[in-house]
Amino acid sequence: MRIEGRDYKTIWLDADGRRVHVVDQTLLPHRFATRTLASAGEAARAIADMIVRGAPLIGATGAYGLALAARENVGDSYIEAARAELLATRPTAVNLRWALDRVSSLLLAAPLSERSALAYAEAARIAEEDEACCEAIGVNGAAIIAGVAARKAGDTVNILTHCNAGWLCAVDWGTALAPIYKAARAGVALHVYVDETRPRNQGASLTAFELLNEGVAHTVVADNAGGHLMQHGMVDLVIVGSDRTTRAGDVCNKIGTYLKALAAHENGVPFYVALPGSTVDWSIRDGVKDIPIEERSPREVTHISGQAENGDIVEVRLTPKGSPARNFGFDVTPSRFVTALITERGVCEASESGLGALYPEKLGAFRE
Amino acid sequence: MRIEGRDYKTIWLDADGRRVHVVDQTLLPHRFATRTLASAGEAARAIADMIVRGAPLIGATGAYGLALAARENVGDSYIEAARAELLATRPTAVNLRWALDRVSSLLLAAPLSERSALAYAEAARIAEEDEACCEAIGVNGAAIIAGVAARKAGDTVNILTHCNAGWLCAVDWGTALAPIYKAARAGVALHVYVDETRPRNQGASLTAFELLNEGVAHTVVADNAGGHLMQHGMVDLVIVGSDRTTRAGDVCNKIGTYLKALAAHENGVPFYVALPGSTVDWSIRDGVKDIPIEERSPREVTHISGQAENGDIVEVRLTPKGSPARNFGFDVTPSRFVTALITERGVCEASESGLGALYPEKLGAFRE
Repeated sequence: MRIEGRDYKTIWLDADGRRVHVVDQTLLPHRFATRTLASAGEAARAIADMIVRGAPLIGATGAYGLALAARENVGDSYIEAARAELLATRPTAVNLRWALDRVSSLLLAAPLSERSALAYAEAARIAEEDEACCEAIGVNGAAIIAGVAARKAGDTVNILTHCNAGWLCAVDWGTALAPIYKAARAGVALHVYVDETRPRNQGASLTAFELLNEGVAHTVVADNAGGHLMQHGMVDLVIVGSDRTTRAGDVCNKIGTYLKALAAHENGVPFYVALPGSTVDWSIRDGVKDIPIEERSPREVTHISGQAENGDIVEVRLTPKGSPARNFGFDVTPSRFVTALITERGVCEASESGLGALYPEKLGAFRE
Repeated sequence: MRIEGRDYKTIWLDADGRRVHVVDQTLLPHRFATRTLASAGEAARAIADMIVRGAPLIGATGAYGLALAARENVGDSYIEAARAELLATRPTAVNLRWALDRVSSLLLAAPLSERSALAYAEAARIAEEDEACCEAIGVNGAAIIAGVAARKAGDTVNILTHCNAGWLCAVDWGTALAPIYKAARAGVALHVYVDETRPRNQGASLTAFELLNEGVAHTVVADNAGGHLMQHGMVDLVIVGSDRTTRAGDVCNKIGTYLKALAAHENGVPFYVALPGSTVDWSIRDGVKDIPIEERSPREVTHISGQAENGDIVEVRLTPKGSPARNFGFDVTPSRFVTALITERGVCEASESGLGALYPEKLGAFRE
C-alpha cells in the first residue's frame, strides 16, 4: 500500500523492536497520521476508539497488544488480564478473539523467559499470514480483471465496489481491492466507481483515499447510482468483500450490497465477492434466514461528520429533530446473484460444492 | 398540510389580496420560516434561490409572480419582461413555462384595466387545479393502501418511499405522499420507511419533515437499506413519484428508484408510481433509451449540509480532496417493474394501453 507516495502497512513494528505503529483511521480521509502504541493499554484503546478497524487488522493489533503486555510482565495472570482487556474492546469480533487465543495459549505454555520474544514473533506471523492471504486473493482476482481487459481489447475496465474492503481493513492489500491493485500494477487500464456507502461512508472516505493514494482512476458516486450505471453499460464487473459467507455461498456484506447484486444480475454484469476462507461460516447454509443483521446506532443515519471549510472535522444533523431512524449494518446477497467467489485458494462457484472443492477439510468437518 | 400544528399551503395570498407567502424550503428540516413575496422580482428570486422547489409549486409561484408584475405595471412590455425574468430562473422547468404562458397569454389579450385582477384569479386557479389533482391522486392511492390494510386485518401497513414527492413540492398533498396522507386521515394504521435519498437527502430532510408534522409514523433509513427491508417482509408496498413517464409506462424518477424497483420485484412487493397525467411524455416509449439523465454538480456528492450542534447550518466535505465524483440526478425504471401507476384520473397498468385508457385524448394526439 502507498500513502502520500510512501510504502506503508496499516500496522508495523518500530525499529526498537518494541513499540507498534498504526495508521490513525479516525482522521481519514481528511488527515493522514500514524499513532504509536507503547503498551497493551494503548493497543486496547486503539481498537476501542476505532483508530484501527477491519477484522484482520483488529486481530493483528490484538496480537501485538499481547506482545506489548508480555514486554511489561510475563506472568500468567498479567497476560490473562491483558487478553481480557483487549477482547473486551470489540467483544463480537471473531478475528480478534481468534488472534488473542492463538498468542495467549502459546505464551501460557512457554517458559517465562521466552514469552516476550515468542509473542512478538507470533504477532508478526499473524500479520504476515494475513498479508499473504490478501495478496493471493489479489492475484486470483486480477486474473479475472485481466480477462475482462483482454475481451475489451485494452479499453478501460470499469469496476464498481461497495464499502471499504481495501488495505485499510487489513495489514496490506485488502480483499475486494486487492485484485484491483494487482491488476493496476500489472498495467491493466481500469477505473473504479466507488459507492459512498452510507451511513458510515467508508467508500467515499476510505476506499477513495486508498485509490487516490494508489493512483488508481476512480469516481465517487452515491449508493443510488449503481443501477443507472449498470443499466447503461458503464460497469464491466462488480467486486465487493464479505463479512460472512455461508457454506452455500450466500454473502453477508455491508448494507446495500444486495441492491447492487440485483442490478448486476438484471443487467448481465458479473458480480464477484472476494473473501479469505477464514470468513466462511461452515455451520450455516441459508444466509437470509440464519445470519442475524446487526442494528447499529441511528445516529449514524441522522448525523454525519465531515471537514468544514476551516479544516475542522464537524458533525452535523441531517434529519429533523424528532424523526426516528434505523441503521441496519449488513444485508445478505443470496448465492444465485454471485457470479463467483474469489479466495486465497482460487476462484469458485458460490455454492457448497464450489467452496468444498477449495476447502475440503473445512466442509468435511461440518458434513459429519 | 400541517406544520407545527397549523394548516398551511406551500403558497398563499396575503389578506391584503396582493402579497404572496411561501414556505422557505432552504431552511428545512432544521428551521421552519415563511417568506413574503411583494414583487415579481422577489418571486423570481424565490424560484432561483430554491426557496420554493418542485415543478407544480414553481409553476404556481411563477403565475403569482406575473400577478405581482401586473400589479406593478399592466403594460405589455412590462408583463413580457417579467415573464422572461421569471422563466430565466429555471429555464428547463416545463411546468414553469406552461404556467407563465397560460397567465401571460391571458393578460396580453385582456383590457389593461382588467389585467391585475385576471392575473391573481388565474394564478389562484393554477394553484387550485394542482391541489385538486394531487388530492385526486391521494384518493385513488389511498384505496390501494386501504386494500392492503384490509388484507392485513388492520395490522400496520409498511410503505417505503424514495425522495420527496409530498406537499413541499406541490401546493398541497403532493403525489407519492398524497395517498399516505389520505389513508392516514381515514384511520389506516401505517408506517413509512423514508429513504434518505442521497445526494440531496430530500427524503431524510423534506419527507421526514412532512411526515413528522403530519403525525405519520415513519423511520428514516439509508438508501442502502431497502433491499434488506423487502427481503425480510418489512415493506408491504412502495410508492414513489415520477418526474417524467413515457407513454409505455417507463418511469424516470430520482436516482436510486430503479434499485428499489428491482428489490420490490425480486421480493414480490408491489411497486406503485404516483404522478399527475401532465408529467407523461406521450412522445416517447423507451425511457432507458430516450430520456437523457441530467448530471448535476459533483459537489452534491462530495459535500453535504446539516445542522451543527450550535444550530448553524454548515457544509462539510465527505470525500478526500482530489477524488472526483459524478452525480446522476435520475434513473429510469422500466415499466415491467411497476405494479401500477396512480394518477388523478385513476389507477392503471404501466403501459400504453393502461395510460391510453385514462388519457385517450393525449394518446390519440400522438398516435397520428
